[in-house]
Formats: sequence, structure tokens, C-alpha cells
Amino acid sequence: MQTLLLGADAVEDHATMPAVIDAVAAAFAADARENTIMPAKSYIDLPQYNGDFRSMPAYVNAETWDAAAVKWVNVHLDNPRDHDLPTVLGTLIYSDPETAFPLAVMDGTVLTRLRTGAAAAVATDHLAVADADSLGLVGAGTQAYTQLDAISAVRNIETVVVADRDTEKQQAFVDTFTDRFDVRAGSIEDAAGCDVLSTITPVESPIVDRKWLGERTHVNAIGADAAGKQEHSERTLLDAKLVIDNYEQCTHSGEINVPWGEGTLTDTDLHGELGDIVAGTLSGRTDDDGITLFDSTGLAIQDVAAAHVVYENASDDGDGTAFSLVDTETS
Amino acid sequence: MQTLLLGADAVEDHATMPAVIDAVAAAFAADARENTIMPAKSYIDLPQYNGDFRSMPAYVNAETWDAAAVKWVNVHLDNPRDHDLPTVLGTLIYSDPETAFPLAVMDGTVLTRLRTGAAAAVATDHLAVADADSLGLVGAGTQAYTQLDAISAVRNIETVVVADRDTEKQQAFVDTFTDRFDVRAGSIEDAAGCDVLSTITPVESPIVDRKWLGERTHVNAIGADAAGKQEHSERTLLDAKLVIDNYEQCTHSGEINVPWGEGTLTDTDLHGELGDIVAGTLSGRTDDDGITLFDSTGLAIQDVAAAHVVYENASDDGDGTAFSLVDTETS
Repeated sequence: MQTLLLGADAVEDHATMPAVIDAVAAAFAADARENTIMPAKSYIDLPQYNGDFRSMPAYVNAETWDAAAVKWVNVHLDNPRDHDLPTVLGTLIYSDPETAFPLAVMDGTVLTRLRTGAAAAVATDHLAVADADSLGLVGAGTQAYTQLDAISAVRNIETVVVADRDTEKQQAFVDTFTDRFDVRAGSIEDAAGCDVLSTITPVESPIVDRKWLGERTHVNAIGADAAGKQEHSERTLLDAKLVIDNYEQCTHSGEINVPWGEGTLTDTDLHGELGDIVAGTLSGRTDDDGITLFDSTGLAIQDVAAAHVVYENASDDGDGTAFSLVDTETS
Repeated sequence: MQTLLLGADAVEDHATMPAVIDAVAAAFAADARENTIMPAKSYIDLPQYNGDFRSMPAYVNAETWDAAAVKWVNVHLDNPRDHDLPTVLGTLIYSDPETAFPLAVMDGTVLTRLRTGAAAAVATDHLAVADADSLGLVGAGTQAYTQLDAISAVRNIETVVVADRDTEKQQAFVDTFTDRFDVRAGSIEDAAGCDVLSTITPVESPIVDRKWLGERTHVNAIGADAAGKQEHSERTLLDAKLVIDNYEQCTHSGEINVPWGEGTLTDTDLHGELGDIVAGTLSGRTDDDGITLFDSTGLAIQDVAAAHVVYENASDDGDGTAFSLVDTETS
């Protein structure tokens, strides 16, 4: 028996966005139905390298498939400057839950971007106004590209406004999408007025004012991924219909972690978890809602779902490199 | 940048036992000096498949090297009968701790056997009598082979007695080693009288009587790996100089877990952890000692150490398959 090796390009090729969105939505619904197992992330902090490793195992039993995987991922802040490597590198082992055979080992870096985009699309689908046609992006890094790909799969996006302090990155983003969208560079304020806003920055203090948001803007708050980080003003968090991906992770390291830790935002301010909305036991947007905000920290079950799509598609296409990795002799 | 893929044969070829024993000893010493990070194993229990997954991440800073890895391993009891696959399958991602780049992905099944053998050798080196020349083995499965390989690297073993209910397995073991050792099939009682005894069975209730052990026998108790399992009589555990690999794991699922849970064996009955002996802060065998027993549950730091040897040796030899697994573009 062989294990399928799938590098970054293969992951990109086979993670067709509509399928990844469907799989991630199914994983969120499975989570709400308690058909997932997701131990807390294990951290290995290495201050001597200004970095850490995270081990993210999970099992998902969606209605039509089940799968298990572990993603081994890191945040090493000095990588770009000192090693010409990305801050984040990920590797994922995807296993058959029935036998534990490792069906695939794949790039987890591109995969992470894709599943993060897909989660924002799932949230947008349930929380943005039905006729949303404009998308604002704060941050023009690689995640911005995936946000646009994913969100335009669930809403008929025509206008895109991208904000970034780095005007070169900003222009590169505009150039990439100018054939497909009415896309322009703008300020954070310009971006925030769109029907949908995704914020994907590493800032530690709020940069998006409450008053810049449109009346019924849906916000995907992606950037905050560690204790102490926050992109949006506290007023926005208090005013919004506030949906989180996971209670433990969001209160610990998501967009809400700072005001929640200070007690200015409490559990009663939370509408609930995205999974319950997908599963139909909690409302999404209603006619009465103004701004909505999805706090996305990124869950191991999203990785499992995205990896499932990649593995199935690659297998069907006969793509990837088969390798005899583990000993399967019984004795 | 490419990741080195190392299948089971490559792991076997490059995990030269003396080097693995040295690396595992260094990892135990590093652990005693608090130069390791080892989050608790994460379990994913899948009763519907009579199995579970375990995620085992760790970082080791030995004096001359450091490394990080995660092993993704399982126990699926129906695998041999229903799927012609081993009960345990493992895959390991080995990473540069400075950048988190995944240097290698390797088989973790053979690796687990090797590092388990190496830990028994480290314990034997510190706890068996210096002139030990006989080794008893209870259980003639694959682990028995590695126990003999490893222990004969630290003591001048001449006589080997192997016990197993399965006489075919027992004879196969004898046949394999008959050229190198005075090896014979025997009863558990015969095996227990040797200078060193390793027990590697999946039994749940004790099968080795206290009175069968030699006066100064050193025991490596390997088999118990889950709550409720025990190979040795309680009397043995109470009489022995009792050394454990890790307090949390041993009290939860090691050889001592049952009497410890019942309160008939308490913390005062424990001599201490193997790492402290290797680090020189706790005594190994002294002239006054009778029987000694090492409770081995298997630590993630052992996997890191063994993987380090495999990766370094394979790299030096230009062996393994280089593969572009993760996206290293910075943008």
C-alpha cells in the first residue's frame, strides 16, 4: 500500500473552491452535531527561534464521508527576514479512520489558506445580505487572494476594494483581478463600506473603525490569531451579530479575545458558533440584523475537510506521487 | 527546498542501534534537565472502528543537536484480522526547529519499535548487573527482535530464552538468532530467571510471577500501554527498584497504572524517572539492589531522537527520496 504525496501545486490544483466550501460547511455542521473529535491544539513554544509549532489533530464524520488528519504547522516570525522562508509552513498527514493507513501526506501551507477562505465563504453565505455585490479587503497578502476566490463563490461579487499600507502589494492584487472584477486600491474606510469585509492583517490593535462599516456589512475577522491581537474596534464587536468558529479558540486567541479577557465583551454578546448556523439550529442573518461579524481562528476540522477534497480529487485524477511510506507487513 | 521521504526500509537501514541508543539516552537526559517540550499525547478515540489515533509532538534540545517532530500513530485492533494491516501504523514529520521546515517525513512504525528497544537498552545499561549475559523475552513478536538487538548492544548477551504461547512465532525467533546467540524456546518461568527480562505482550492481567525472577534480574516492562494493562505481579512492582519513563504516562497507562490507581502502589514506591538516572542526579543499580524494573510507556522525545539519527544518517548517505512538499515562496 502506498501513500499519496501532494505538494503545494497539487493541493492548489485539486482543492477546487466550491468543493472545499461544501466540505468545510459539512465539517462545521458535523461539529455542531457532535460528529467531530478535535483535541485542543498542542503548542511547542520556542522563544529562542521566535517561533512555535502547533499540532492539530481532528476527526470529522460528515454525512457522506469521514476522515482523520493531523496538521503540523508553525509560526516563525523571523523566517522571511533570516531564512527566506514563509512565517507559516504546514504539513498534513491524511488518514483512513477505519484502518489509520496514511492515505496522503500533503502541503499544509496552501491548504491552510484555502480552508480559511472557505470558512469565510461559509460564514458569508449565512451572514451577508443575499444581494451583496461588493467585497472590501484589509490586507493584500496571500490570504486576500483566497478570500476573494472563496467569497465570490457564494455571492455575486462585482466590486472589490483592497487596502494595504504596502502599495506594491496592493497594486499587485489589483492587477491580478482587474480582468475579473471592478477592483481598486482604497483606504480601510473605503473597504469597510462594502457589503462584505474580510480583514487579514497581523495587527495587534484595532485598525477598522465602527463608523466606517456599512449599515449591513458582514465582516470576516481573520487576522487575530493570538492572545492580544484585535483588528476591529470594540464598538463593532459589541454592535455586531457576533458569530465565532469555536468558543475555546476565539476567547483565547481570536478577534474577541482582548475585550472578552477584559470582561467588556461577555458570553451574552455572542450569537453563537458557525456550526450551529450551518446545522440549522441557530439563525443566520435575519431582516432585522445590521452588521454581522465572524470571528475565524481556524479549526483542525477545516483542515480535515479541505484535505478530504484534495485527496479525493487527486486520487480520481490519478495525480500525486505514490510512495511506500509505512511498513504494512503484519507479523 | 525539499523534504526527504524515508520509508520503513530506509528507517531500518539508517537507525543504527548504537546511535539510536545514544540519541535516546541524550533525549532522556535532556528531559531531566528540562531541555525538552513534550505536550501530552492527544487521543482521538474511534470506537466504531475499534481504534484510536494519537498525536505525539515533541522538541528535544540535546547538547549537540536539537529537533522537533510529530508522530501520528494509532492502535486499531481489528486491522490484522479485517484489513491485513498491522494494529499500529505510524508516520512522523521531522522538522528543523529553527525554521520549522519539514526536513523529513518518515515511517513511524519501524521507528517506534527501534526507539522502544533503545529505551530498554538505556534502562538496562543503568539498571542491569554489569556482567549480565542472559536475556529472557516474554512475547516473540516484532518487538522481541528489537529488544534483543538493542539490549545486546549494551550487555554481552550470550544466552537468550524466548517464551510465547504461539510456538510458531517462538520457533521463528529462535531460528532467526540461532547463529548469533545461544537461544532457546522456554517457559515464562525460564525467561524470568535471566539477568535481563523484557516483557512485550498485550496481556491485561499479570503473567510473570515474582518468584520466577532471578535475585538481581532487571526487568523491562514494555507491554502495558493502556489503562488496565499489567504484565507483572504486584509483588514484583513493590519489591523492585522501580524506574519509570514518565510519571504522567506510567501512572495513567504503564505497567504500574493498575496498582497505582488502586492505591496499593504509591509514589513512595517509585525510585524515579530514567532521565534523572541518565543525567546523573539519581542512582542506577547499586550493589544493594535486588530486582529492578523499568516501566516503559514510550515517549515522544524518543521518537524525535530516533528520527534525528535516521534523518542525519540518510542525509549523509544521500539516501531517501527528495520531494517538494511544502510551499516555500514568501509573498
